[in-house]
Amino acid sequence: MPEFFNVLAPDSALRALLDRLPTRLESETVLTPQALGRVTAETIVAPEALPAFPRSTMDGYAVRARDTFGASESVPAYLEVVGEVPMGHAPGLTLAVGQAAVAYTGGMPAHGADAVVMVENTQQIDATSIEVLRPVAPGENMVQVGEDVQQGDIIVPAGWLLRPQDIGGLMALGITSVAVCRRPRVAIVSTGDEIVVPEATPGPGQIRDINTYTIAALVQQAGGVPVSLGVVPDQYEAQRQAAVTGLEQADVLIFSAGSSVSNRDMTVQVLDSLGQPGVLVHGIAHRPGKPTIVALVEGKPAFGLPGNPVSAMVVFGLLVRPTLYALSGCLQPPQPPLVRARLTQNIPSVAGREDHVQVRLFSSDGVLHAEPIFGKSNLIYTLIRAVGVVVVPLDKGGLYAGEEVSVQVHA
Amino acid sequence: MPEFFNVLAPDSALRALLDRLPTRLESETVLTPQALGRVTAETIVAPEALPAFPRSTMDGYAVRARDTFGASESVPAYLEVVGEVPMGHAPGLTLAVGQAAVAYTGGMPAHGADAVVMVENTQQIDATSIEVLRPVAPGENMVQVGEDVQQGDIIVPAGWLLRPQDIGGLMALGITSVAVCRRPRVAIVSTGDEIVVPEATPGPGQIRDINTYTIAALVQQAGGVPVSLGVVPDQYEAQRQAAVTGLEQADVLIFSAGSSVSNRDMTVQVLDSLGQPGVLVHGIAHRPGKPTIVALVEGKPAFGLPGNPVSAMVVFGLLVRPTLYALSGCLQPPQPPLVRARLTQNIPSVAGREDHVQVRLFSSDGVLHAEPIFGKSNLIYTLIRAVGVVVVPLDKGGLYAGEEVSVQVHA
Repeated sequence: MPEFFNVLAPDSALRALLDRLPTRLESETVLTPQALGRVTAETIVAPEALPAFPRSTMDGYAVRARDTFGASESVPAYLEVVGEVPMGHAPGLTLAVGQAAVAYTGGMPAHGADAVVMVENTQQIDATSIEVLRPVAPGENMVQVGEDVQQGDIIVPAGWLLRPQDIGGLMALGITSVAVCRRPRVAIVSTGDEIVVPEATPGPGQIRDINTYTIAALVQQAGGVPVSLGVVPDQYEAQRQAAVTGLEQADVLIFSAGSSVSNRDMTVQVLDSLGQPGVLVHGIAHRPGKPTIVALVEGKPAFGLPGNPVSAMVVFGLLVRPTLYALSGCLQPPQPPLVRARLTQNIPSVAGREDHVQVRLFSSDGVLHAEPIFGKSNLIYTLIRAVGVVVVPLDKGGLYAGEEVSVQVHA
Repeated sequence: MPEFFNVLAPDSALRALLDRLPTRLESETVLTPQALGRVTAETIVAPEALPAFPRSTMDGYAVRARDTFGASESVPAYLEVVGEVPMGHAPGLTLAVGQAAVAYTGGMPAHGADAVVMVENTQQIDATSIEVLRPVAPGENMVQVGEDVQQGDIIVPAGWLLRPQDIGGLMALGITSVAVCRRPRVAIVSTGDEIVVPEATPGPGQIRDINTYTIAALVQQAGGVPVSLGVVPDQYEAQRQAAVTGLEQADVLIFSAGSSVSNRDMTVQVLDSLGQPGVLVHGIAHRPGKPTIVALVEGKPAFGLPGNPVSAMVVFGLLVRPTLYALSGCLQPPQPPLVRARLTQNIPSVAGREDHVQVRLFSSDGVLHAEPIFGKSNLIYTLIRAVGVVVVPLDKGGLYAGEEVSVQVHA
């Protein structure tokens, strides 16, 4: 049985692939309200200033600031109220010396006004006059034209993963459609003579396909489109045909590589037979992700993920997810949430290998604890009972009970 | 202008609503591979054990453990290799004393075997015999029937937000469809005489609708279905009609309440006119979320969110998102990722009020810093430039520059 010929640290394995990746996927135009979670393909510049007119930030009276200078509770300034500017309208009036007009939060102050007095700092005398009890400085309680965004400002760079507030900000400027990177399509092939579809009743020695579904859901979470090609037995020609189909239909190919050595060897041969440069990485310095294969086939990334569900999910996070974001040119891929917790047990590892250990979390005496679940990585429910993982870095021989560690919480 | 009559702390405001909420929404059945991010409506129990047969966890030889007791490099145990059990098949052979059979990772060991010797710990002598260089204990390198899940085990409780690994785990047991809570439908009404649709060119004093789109995206992120009812002017009858339509079509009603006091007063009157018990909360002890209205109308939650985009988004996170998860009976609503950072400036606040301050993050000398963005909350781009928020809790008068704080990162 052949040994791994090229065991790289996970980071180096990822870099080996990303350094050779061609430019990102082409773009498409979508309606802005449908662009949540998509990645912008172009820099977006403000076509106009926001706000486009001076706005009051308070309910009160638009005034000429200098008319209030020196005002106090004992010596108020008396102003004549000459009208109001209703919401959504241009002012129909201009203030002369000693005049004020009712102003609403978000509305335009009257012409000639350069500040707004909060209603709380006034006293109404009669229908047309008020006392101002405190002075305001020019510009006070107002937002100026362009104070939010200036015309020509870069509002969203290319490669930006659009969040709810970005959607709102684009609509605020009338940008109702947006060029985003096409979603990467990811073909998923599940291999192994022992694998049957979940709808089937497995015979002796058979198990249902798990990884197609876990991986498809992970692809969806990362903004990709999963294309499931089903279960393929351990036959070279059948696997090669599935790989060819996958690369035709998708931008990325994932082989869930089965768990036996002979099956993994076949995956290597298949992924190396499809085009240049072929297999880049065969094995990573990682537990439980060691039996991982990374290839690049005529510009398209292809992965052989370990057959064990826990390993497959961990390696997806290490290598596939960053690749999908790289294909979209995404500048700020979402990171898994981290929580700090105290380790309940030693985690043995080996320097030169990165370990991902599943943990559950519990509180005791007000302190959050992380308890390793040392389940075998072929047990899917290890993953389901876990809340997250603790990483033992490459340069450490392990972690000690009582250490404070960062737990990456499973999405 | 009337004062807020019932200013509650955000937590109390939420509890005032949730304590009165009727039971969660009804359930529907979906295909498991389509159930990512949905919330289970029922407890799910394992219909069978997993694995259903003993599995080898290594490539090597299935053996009777006692035949290897005492084996060592200097005094190996000699075993006869009587065949193999191919992947995906029941064993066709039974081991007698002194016999072994080839076993593959994930495959069934031969009948009579109670352990597997790793291939690395053997030496092949000829086609039908091996030396075993280390003893194995009974059960070693095998997974027993039910070691992952026992038949009848609760595998997923009711109220569980399904993650990729849960989807895989359900498929592993042949559970190809699942009862989940119906997605909450959320009607969104944007009010205000100054608001125009984003497709329009705003006239003087007018601005484009932002909040409908930000809120719709937030609803989507929280697993709900936004139902946009458009922009409604500050006219009581028009707003009331929009509210009635919203409550007919949806499970939750959101009024983006405009920014002027008179508009907010109208929202209160509308939300209080629709049914029992009506408005529960009018104003929360929060900056910038103070002008918030919470109502319950014949069992359906209704919110008047502040018109300012920053405030609207913050209050959505405080009150609306938890309500949507409560309607689904969700046990583990996703929490915003937290990062620890050092504050660059004092944040003044007032004891008895909770503040959410937008911040940006930067690294300096290897330390992550959080820099407050004290933008006015009617500037949407304050939100876009921010990476997250720092919370000044109710019982604190502020935070000091140099303090280590938790930053909730915007999704």
